[in-house]
Amino acid sequence: MTSYTAPLKDMAFLLHDVLKIDASDIPGYADLDRGFTAAVLEEAGKLATDVLEPLNAVGDREGCTLENGVVRTPTGFKAAFDQLREGGWPALDCDPAYGGQGLPYLMGTAVGEILVSANMAFNMYQGLTHGAYSAIHAHGTDAQKALYLPKMVTCDWTGTMNLTEPHCGTDLGLMRTKAEPQADGSYKITGTKIFISAGEHDMADNIIHLVLAKAPGGGEGTKGISLFIVPKFLVNADGSLGARNSLAVGKVEHKMGIHGNATCVMNYDGATGYLLGDLHKGMRAMFTMMNEARLGVGLQGYAVAEAAYQNAVAYARDRLQGRAITGAENPSGPADPLIVHPDIRRSLMDQKSFVEGARALTLWAASLIDRGHRTGDAAAEGLVSLMIPVIKGFQTDRGFEMAVQAQQVWGGHGYIEDNGVSQFVRDARIAQIYEGANGVQALDLVGRKLTQDGGKHVMAFFEMVKAECKAHDADPRMAAFTEPLKQASKAMQAAGMFFMQNGMKNPNAALAGSYDFMLMMGHVCMGLMWTRMAAAASQALDAGGGDDAFLTTKIATGRYYMARQLPACAMHLARIESGADPVMALAAEAF
Amino acid sequence: MTSYTAPLKDMAFLLHDVLKIDASDIPGYADLDRGFTAAVLEEAGKLATDVLEPLNAVGDREGCTLENGVVRTPTGFKAAFDQLREGGWPALDCDPAYGGQGLPYLMGTAVGEILVSANMAFNMYQGLTHGAYSAIHAHGTDAQKALYLPKMVTCDWTGTMNLTEPHCGTDLGLMRTKAEPQADGSYKITGTKIFISAGEHDMADNIIHLVLAKAPGGGEGTKGISLFIVPKFLVNADGSLGARNSLAVGKVEHKMGIHGNATCVMNYDGATGYLLGDLHKGMRAMFTMMNEARLGVGLQGYAVAEAAYQNAVAYARDRLQGRAITGAENPSGPADPLIVHPDIRRSLMDQKSFVEGARALTLWAASLIDRGHRTGDAAAEGLVSLMIPVIKGFQTDRGFEMAVQAQQVWGGHGYIEDNGVSQFVRDARIAQIYEGANGVQALDLVGRKLTQDGGKHVMAFFEMVKAECKAHDADPRMAAFTEPLKQASKAMQAAGMFFMQNGMKNPNAALAGSYDFMLMMGHVCMGLMWTRMAAAASQALDAGGGDDAFLTTKIATGRYYMARQLPACAMHLARIESGADPVMALAAEAF
Repeated sequence: MTSYTAPLKDMAFLLHDVLKIDASDIPGYADLDRGFTAAVLEEAGKLATDVLEPLNAVGDREGCTLENGVVRTPTGFKAAFDQLREGGWPALDCDPAYGGQGLPYLMGTAVGEILVSANMAFNMYQGLTHGAYSAIHAHGTDAQKALYLPKMVTCDWTGTMNLTEPHCGTDLGLMRTKAEPQADGSYKITGTKIFISAGEHDMADNIIHLVLAKAPGGGEGTKGISLFIVPKFLVNADGSLGARNSLAVGKVEHKMGIHGNATCVMNYDGATGYLLGDLHKGMRAMFTMMNEARLGVGLQGYAVAEAAYQNAVAYARDRLQGRAITGAENPSGPADPLIVHPDIRRSLMDQKSFVEGARALTLWAASLIDRGHRTGDAAAEGLVSLMIPVIKGFQTDRGFEMAVQAQQVWGGHGYIEDNGVSQFVRDARIAQIYEGANGVQALDLVGRKLTQDGGKHVMAFFEMVKAECKAHDADPRMAAFTEPLKQASKAMQAAGMFFMQNGMKNPNAALAGSYDFMLMMGHVCMGLMWTRMAAAASQALDAGGGDDAFLTTKIATGRYYMARQLPACAMHLARIESGADPVMALAAEAF
Repeated sequence: MTSYTAPLKDMAFLLHDVLKIDASDIPGYADLDRGFTAAVLEEAGKLATDVLEPLNAVGDREGCTLENGVVRTPTGFKAAFDQLREGGWPALDCDPAYGGQGLPYLMGTAVGEILVSANMAFNMYQGLTHGAYSAIHAHGTDAQKALYLPKMVTCDWTGTMNLTEPHCGTDLGLMRTKAEPQADGSYKITGTKIFISAGEHDMADNIIHLVLAKAPGGGEGTKGISLFIVPKFLVNADGSLGARNSLAVGKVEHKMGIHGNATCVMNYDGATGYLLGDLHKGMRAMFTMMNEARLGVGLQGYAVAEAAYQNAVAYARDRLQGRAITGAENPSGPADPLIVHPDIRRSLMDQKSFVEGARALTLWAASLIDRGHRTGDAAAEGLVSLMIPVIKGFQTDRGFEMAVQAQQVWGGHGYIEDNGVSQFVRDARIAQIYEGANGVQALDLVGRKLTQDGGKHVMAFFEMVKAECKAHDADPRMAAFTEPLKQASKAMQAAGMFFMQNGMKNPNAALAGSYDFMLMMGHVCMGLMWTRMAAAASQALDAGGGDDAFLTTKIATGRYYMARQLPACAMHLARIESGADPVMALAAEAF
């Protein structure tokens, strides 16, 4: 059996000692004092530990079942969803104009981590709703917002995003779902969408589907795509529910993981839809939500790894097997706990240092999103847009690997489903795939983001790293952080230079190295985060009166990351500099 | 739906162009001419493609069920097992004195790859039987051999290995299962064993359990352990089946993968057992079979990756999505196939170059085992014993990662169980865990194998690498192989030096780097194999009259591995040289 405890101390350290949010000039941040954030996160932690985590295994075991067009969620999900609603959690960072609590996105992100760690599949119902809420909030008419948002803010109605079709995933230009304009200004939507998370279920009165479809006159490819609101039940002008719309779930997928989430095939059969945003600008509307959606998936990457890590630590402390090579540490017992063995330590340190670094990166990025939204700071928006593919791709890859390492600590018992750690691996796996497979993230990073706005965001990133290193020049304790960070950043710059020099004549030379560049930049981001965390911890230690054990542990964890993970950057650079030839040498028939 | 075709060309190239087995001085190898090996492997390929592969998904879906003490295998397994028996496959490399065909272990290994690729879970019933056969063959009395082996050679009776107990896996010294001597020379075995593959099933007339247990007088820890033959049905002197023994399956485990294999809890309740080998020398008896058992698991690592790779290639050729950045390659279609995209190529090249390298390493090691067994060559035995933890640990780690990459090529469709590629990932996962978890392999390598016989085997390995590089000094085409190999070997030597200089005062300094050393040595082994394969392919090209397309593909695949994978060695060295401090810095309570 697994368990989970919210990492409240780590979060408080990040929010207040590293990001120093209560001293920030971002509107709304001044209210986020230590007492307030602690109260919110502690409450979220209780819900997570007491309600959601125990349902995680239930959801995995039972899955969702489709009978006569009705999707039944696992036992206990509906009651838990009611508790989530009653606690007001879905409304946390929504617009007060529609019943939201108006807290920063940063707080929604921190709470999100806790809920995802406890039960990733369950939290997707809320997560998708939040995505649909954001789309309507950003692109809807006042009438649409008034009609749909209040119920979505509370999760009385949930939402979905319908992009993928059987023959098109990444390449949405191949889309076949059609929207035919009607005399009353609405559209008839016809087509089949697949992989629709929370597409149908028994936990809400209505489901507001956002559906990409092609309306006449938009031209070929992605240009002709528009976004539509297609409710399960049509909504009357007074907000009451009207007729059942012509859409139905065709299948609930049997998946490797996230069984508690209903992943549906959705059939739209002349369903009534309402244009959301501008005609033929559906892709643009989707893109405005992409940063948050991808940050949310990057968060899943480390949030599941955190839960897996906690259970690996518990097992490593509990399981007696072998003796420490330096002499028995549990001499009165039949053997020492696993945690005495260096290779178990290596694994736990890998996991711990990744999760804490990724949390820092994610919360920092969330604060940059707040800065962009709340102050219109274009530099913050540019920076976060550069980092999003890294947060999504790197964090979900590493998060999966760390879940695998956590399972490995359990030995054979980790392979037995009853023990629950296999679920972490199976659940974490999807985060590498959906919301743009990680190869697509790498393509986005190297093919688009690096050169966006004349490359100024990546230049700003390098400047930021340089400034961080320089700021600690005088502090010899920080050399274990700044030296590896400088090296890693230099390697990343060399990779960028290689792309510039070779990518013009042969774009494959850049794209063949894109995946390595994404991972390399991930390590540099983590190195930057660890440098900041170590500096904050050192300052807090110098100031005294803090939790010294916590702070020294933080520094030691960061030193591990710098010493053991940043050397990966040189390997990625070597791969990148080998260019396109090794990668593209074979004819397609030769595989 | 998945499919599988045996890689007959690759195997023929390895056996005859690289290993040159028909020119070998190992007894029995001279008979293995091209026509013979091709005929055997082609037949195995037919069985794999036509019979075993279609059952792979069935086994995954249905699993094994326990009802009233009887374990039912998935639909079709029993008929397929009969076909396997009728084809004489289990007897392939067994002793002719007991009905075997007496072919070299190398041929059993090549056939084994084909069967495992097609259906890993199914092949375990045969694989475990072969392990038990080997133990009885090596340690049994003449009477025991005559009584049990003929039926085990044919798989009319299957076998199991019983080591693990609920509270002890790696640390067998904690074992509680007891063996009480009886007046007639037999023993009464009492205890519970877990994770017993093929522990109970409906495909054989009898099951011969080999059980480790503690007999009185052997002392503490592993010293008191003996090995016993404990048949499900007692066997009369004339070979007929006698009474049911006092043992029963307690549970069939619900696992992450290999569902078609019945993984059992076995309860021995005063069961009749017969000592196998010397009293209190059970661990030593187990160790003599360990090389083959671990090589078999290392084989599973790449064999499942091969199957996954084949299905990734098929999907990448078939699925139309996006356009090549260098211009449409399928202009008449709605999009280009995935295989045009550089990052898909990177993934497929990773998979292909790993699988082919691992196959070479495994077959080479199998030939060294033959050399040891058939000529008593101690140097061959020492070398293979050094490489076994690498073959097991590195190949199963990388094999799993490659299965994950293959699944990634399928995008969201890879996460849907109906498509069958998730099974490769779930099945491959166990190979990293059982037969000594990979962390234990690393410990075996660094803590034992490096220094075995005064370190002479690792010195011989370095000499062999050096000689291989020197042999191609005059051939500029080979520099792309020999230069990275020299670098990687130098890094590995530096790591060994670090262990020597630091491990004496602080054993943790060596053990903290053991995992990285295992992976690094894996890359060096692969580099050595690719150098040999490239040289053989170049020679065959020079000679002319061969399959030029195949040979140039082989060289290009090797160049990819050298350019893109060998740079990992420098990273592993950097990690190793960071020593124990970062790894061991935290108190156990600080996690």
